[in-house]
Amino acid sequence: MTKQNSARIIGTGAYVPSKVLTNHDLEKLMDTSDEWIQEKYGIKERRIVSEDQEQNISDLSYNSAIKALESAKIHAEELDLIIIASIYSDIRSPATACILQGKLGAKNAVAFDMNIGGCPNAVFAMTTALKFLDGVRFKRALVVCTEIYSRFIDWSYRNTACFLGDGSGAVILESCPKEEGVLAYNLYTDGTKYNKAWWPGGGTVDVLPNQKTPHIEGKDVWEFGNTATPNVIIETVSDAGLEMKEIDFVIFHQANVNIINNVMDMIGLPRERTYMNNYKYGNTGGASSLIALDEAIHLGKIKRGDKLAICSYGAGLAWGSMVLNY
Amino acid sequence: MTKQNSARIIGTGAYVPSKVLTNHDLEKLMDTSDEWIQEKYGIKERRIVSEDQEQNISDLSYNSAIKALESAKIHAEELDLIIIASIYSDIRSPATACILQGKLGAKNAVAFDMNIGGCPNAVFAMTTALKFLDGVRFKRALVVCTEIYSRFIDWSYRNTACFLGDGSGAVILESCPKEEGVLAYNLYTDGTKYNKAWWPGGGTVDVLPNQKTPHIEGKDVWEFGNTATPNVIIETVSDAGLEMKEIDFVIFHQANVNIINNVMDMIGLPRERTYMNNYKYGNTGGASSLIALDEAIHLGKIKRGDKLAICSYGAGLAWGSMVLNY
Repeated sequence: MTKQNSARIIGTGAYVPSKVLTNHDLEKLMDTSDEWIQEKYGIKERRIVSEDQEQNISDLSYNSAIKALESAKIHAEELDLIIIASIYSDIRSPATACILQGKLGAKNAVAFDMNIGGCPNAVFAMTTALKFLDGVRFKRALVVCTEIYSRFIDWSYRNTACFLGDGSGAVILESCPKEEGVLAYNLYTDGTKYNKAWWPGGGTVDVLPNQKTPHIEGKDVWEFGNTATPNVIIETVSDAGLEMKEIDFVIFHQANVNIINNVMDMIGLPRERTYMNNYKYGNTGGASSLIALDEAIHLGKIKRGDKLAICSYGAGLAWGSMVLNY
Repeated sequence: MTKQNSARIIGTGAYVPSKVLTNHDLEKLMDTSDEWIQEKYGIKERRIVSEDQEQNISDLSYNSAIKALESAKIHAEELDLIIIASIYSDIRSPATACILQGKLGAKNAVAFDMNIGGCPNAVFAMTTALKFLDGVRFKRALVVCTEIYSRFIDWSYRNTACFLGDGSGAVILESCPKEEGVLAYNLYTDGTKYNKAWWPGGGTVDVLPNQKTPHIEGKDVWEFGNTATPNVIIETVSDAGLEMKEIDFVIFHQANVNIINNVMDMIGLPRERTYMNNYKYGNTGGASSLIALDEAIHLGKIKRGDKLAICSYGAGLAWGSMVLNY
């Protein structure tokens, strides 16, 4: 972990599109069932953008960012850094974060996009912001994770289409003295396993068409989720100088309720110390950790003074955890 | 500027595809002339990937990265961070940096992609690496800027097709005590002007087709290049506690020889203290600063102990400069 200044969360926000797609709706599109999806993933419905509205990465990001700014009680001009982490962008160039900067009027910010693999993005982007927050040039950072999977999904391919959803989560980090905010983090990627969870198309390998079927080696990703995830949380809690029982709440990437329950059992924390919302949103990639964080705060499950662990993992393969004082 | 540890350049590498496309070749594809292109941009020819070879972002990046590792005399296992900055990726997910991590066998690295707008990427990605290099978890970072514009260009649209080229540049940064490496940096983005230099397609706005015509407001970008660029160099040299005359060499993004000559005149340095290679490669986006850096080092124009300024700018709008001891 780093020895520099730390950073604390001063605001969060979340946005999901209003259009609901239920498992029963999916039954009409593909050979699947509400029962099978709920048992395998814990998902009942998900939100997707409407094709009749202009809803792009910058639009969803704007909506979650505005809520995060309100929650932090700061103006956009007070932001020094804007990071959007997504597997998509509005357009090829420039970064969607620049477009968002313009929409927010965040005239003092530096803006860029980053990506690890979608699902793991939240902890990686928050750590990148933490690294920038030196308290001198960079005092406040907006981190937004947004995915619009629905526009790229092959809706007839039931293995992946049934568990994805659209959404955006945002967090505002502010530079603070050591020990007051983030206590420790750990990030890992293993690119030798990039093809365990990958999404073809959209890049130089296949310029056209934009293929629409993500490929997931279910068994391998299940094993990965159930080993890498508890290990990185245990390591990061230890790096923070804490015992696991001191962790008041854990926020996970919302891929799968069964993995989350398993991992809570493995790290020895009661399941009440986590929050799951993928029953209503599905897997919204990097957005999922930040949407869950925002909702858990609004529900009073996470309170100021709590010791919080965040863990996100997925395509890369990539996994990471951050432990902080909320 | 930051007060944390600094970082120094311990290796550089560059790679361009072997296939040459001359202005005379372009005369057969579009209504243009060798004379017009040379006068307007200073470009005689550019390199483009072959369609009969597998040349993607990770392949070009691998080739420049291997040279940078050789130049730094380190093994891939000694890398703690890999950043690829590009407006493209190999595939939709995961990050191309993860794929590169696997190809290099850089098993101890954390890998991610980032993007600002293509052309400005080098200084932004180097600064991001600098921010990560705490000397504890992160000691050595590989930064690669790669673009494969040729696969997305509309070759019949002469206003933009004639000035772009493909290539990859790499740099390895190592954590070092303050004052020994990077002395100062400044980054700026102005997303209210994102549509002064933008490339539609490839994102959520236009999923299909991948449109192929970047739009550049030539007059605005010319003015931007001739004002933002000298200003950010002057500011960064001052932040480094130096006088301009102490700067031994300046490396620019290779957009346009006329802008580079103007800026050298404006900051009051002799034109011999810069290096231009876009006559043979065109504008290779973020790669161009790093390819120019590598070539200038190999040509003996930049020597150990020199005070170096790097400046990259372009779509975002985004501009930045870094001043360092080489």
